[in-house]
Amino acid sequence: MRKDIKTIGILGAGVIGGGWALHFLRNGFDVVVFDPGEGADDKLRRMAEDTWPTLERLGLADGASIERLSFVDSLEDMVSRSDFIQESAPENLDRKQKLYEVLGRITPEDVIICSSTSGFAMSDIQCECPTPGRTVVGHPFNPPYLVPFMEVVGGEKSDADVVDFTAEFFEATGKKVARMQRELPGFIANRLQEALWREALHMVAEGEATVEEIDDSITYGPGLRWAIMGPCLTFHLAGGEGGMAHMLDHFGPALEEPWTRLKAPELTSGLRDRMVEGCNRSAAGRCNEDLVRERDECLIRIMNAIKDYRKAEAACGGC
Amino acid sequence: MRKDIKTIGILGAGVIGGGWALHFLRNGFDVVVFDPGEGADDKLRRMAEDTWPTLERLGLADGASIERLSFVDSLEDMVSRSDFIQESAPENLDRKQKLYEVLGRITPEDVIICSSTSGFAMSDIQCECPTPGRTVVGHPFNPPYLVPFMEVVGGEKSDADVVDFTAEFFEATGKKVARMQRELPGFIANRLQEALWREALHMVAEGEATVEEIDDSITYGPGLRWAIMGPCLTFHLAGGEGGMAHMLDHFGPALEEPWTRLKAPELTSGLRDRMVEGCNRSAAGRCNEDLVRERDECLIRIMNAIKDYRKAEAACGGC
Repeated sequence: MRKDIKTIGILGAGVIGGGWALHFLRNGFDVVVFDPGEGADDKLRRMAEDTWPTLERLGLADGASIERLSFVDSLEDMVSRSDFIQESAPENLDRKQKLYEVLGRITPEDVIICSSTSGFAMSDIQCECPTPGRTVVGHPFNPPYLVPFMEVVGGEKSDADVVDFTAEFFEATGKKVARMQRELPGFIANRLQEALWREALHMVAEGEATVEEIDDSITYGPGLRWAIMGPCLTFHLAGGEGGMAHMLDHFGPALEEPWTRLKAPELTSGLRDRMVEGCNRSAAGRCNEDLVRERDECLIRIMNAIKDYRKAEAACGGC
Repeated sequence: MRKDIKTIGILGAGVIGGGWALHFLRNGFDVVVFDPGEGADDKLRRMAEDTWPTLERLGLADGASIERLSFVDSLEDMVSRSDFIQESAPENLDRKQKLYEVLGRITPEDVIICSSTSGFAMSDIQCECPTPGRTVVGHPFNPPYLVPFMEVVGGEKSDADVVDFTAEFFEATGKKVARMQRELPGFIANRLQEALWREALHMVAEGEATVEEIDDSITYGPGLRWAIMGPCLTFHLAGGEGGMAHMLDHFGPALEEPWTRLKAPELTSGLRDRMVEGCNRSAAGRCNEDLVRERDECLIRIMNAIKDYRKAEAACGGC
């Protein structure tokens, strides 16, 4: 398919680009970074040194070393050394379009150019790129060296095999990839996260809740469960023995309640069946009791893990 | 204030009522349950036996015992023995109103009647109750014996000191309580959770994402972070050294993007300042580096805790 990937080009060394650099270093790649920003190199080097012990605890691939991080002074230099490029430039569509025009011209043809964009469509980013077939979105969550989930999706002119290869490549580095079949503004997780975030902003704007109440309500509430089971499987469980089917049949009318500013879709029988079948696939044969046991066991482990850390942190005075 | 609370009356022994029974048993109370449903008692007794080892691991209060769980055959019997009543009847406003008319009549005056309702306002529930001053909402998350967060809020006719007492009472049992100053449909966490849930339903209805993709996107993505820091502090951190102020100034325009079906509020300077001040209070002097270290440390602990469990579970074939 593609030539072996040994060196990753990192374009943009901010919070996300720097996090990607660490992810690839941990996985045993050479990483060559280009960022035109003043002091960007020093900042990333410090971040890498600070974070390396964390990566060691996670486990390093054979040959992984912080020594394999290097910096170059030009875009040309970076692309000429890279087998795969991860672009994390500022989120500005106009600038990204111009960047991809240049990248598409100067990057060797068999090198994939992957964008960390958190919401723009690759169809829009690639529109001025002379070689758009090898461009693709690979959108991570912060920090990319720890949070596994990411979305991989192509634009209109992206080659399907490039998108597939990119998804498999990231999976081989330990990522949990959603290989999306079509473009969707905000992809998947950011749409969900953004709905919650906008409701939170409305509540603060209207004086309905404080920032602290909002954060506590998630961190000590549903957020604890979501680290174990997503919102669908959580509600499947809340439906008891009847699962998601009972949940929707019983609480369907609650979708009419003004419990958020977002109107719900009509609960058609088609939507109901899709939710039920999806949850049954996710449950994968685990009965209600199995799921409850798993949730409870993981909840205790998570709460203990956080409590222990906070205790240790408090004891050393936040050292 | 109120007489010492020794016995908790549990009205309704479903998933939530049963979970409350376990929470109070663990905290060393006598628990007396009334549920008119066929077989409800047996079901709760089985659930209590299954869950007791979990509660033991969490730590039992002095004198806590599963032997202190008892069942009665009438509402009258339950209220006459209880010092505090937790009502978890089905979510039907009309039925709750009728129930509170009866409860308000037959329950000794100094006993608080607390509703687990997940979205109705106490002002509506208490409208036919002859003694509404001692009625209050105490809304938990599933399972109530593990997830700490809950909202406590009164209705128009609730006494403020009853609401305050109830909040303190629950806090003394280890709950993380948001004592709300005014009624809000869906309270706090369910509004946020519901916004995310409705966006998810829209996405499945439109074929934009599958149930599994939605769950994975949260569980392996933002859900991992939310167990540690809420959405506001998470974004404060994503803003780098500039925190929430940088985040809002820089990504404010993204609120116009169609990244969810929920329209964002206008980002006024007042809203901006409230968000920034709230995050600064939450950060409580921790600088960006401190917060990153805390997040990363807790993320690793959480991921390891879940991974170990899943490994053990797989090894014993889901025993």
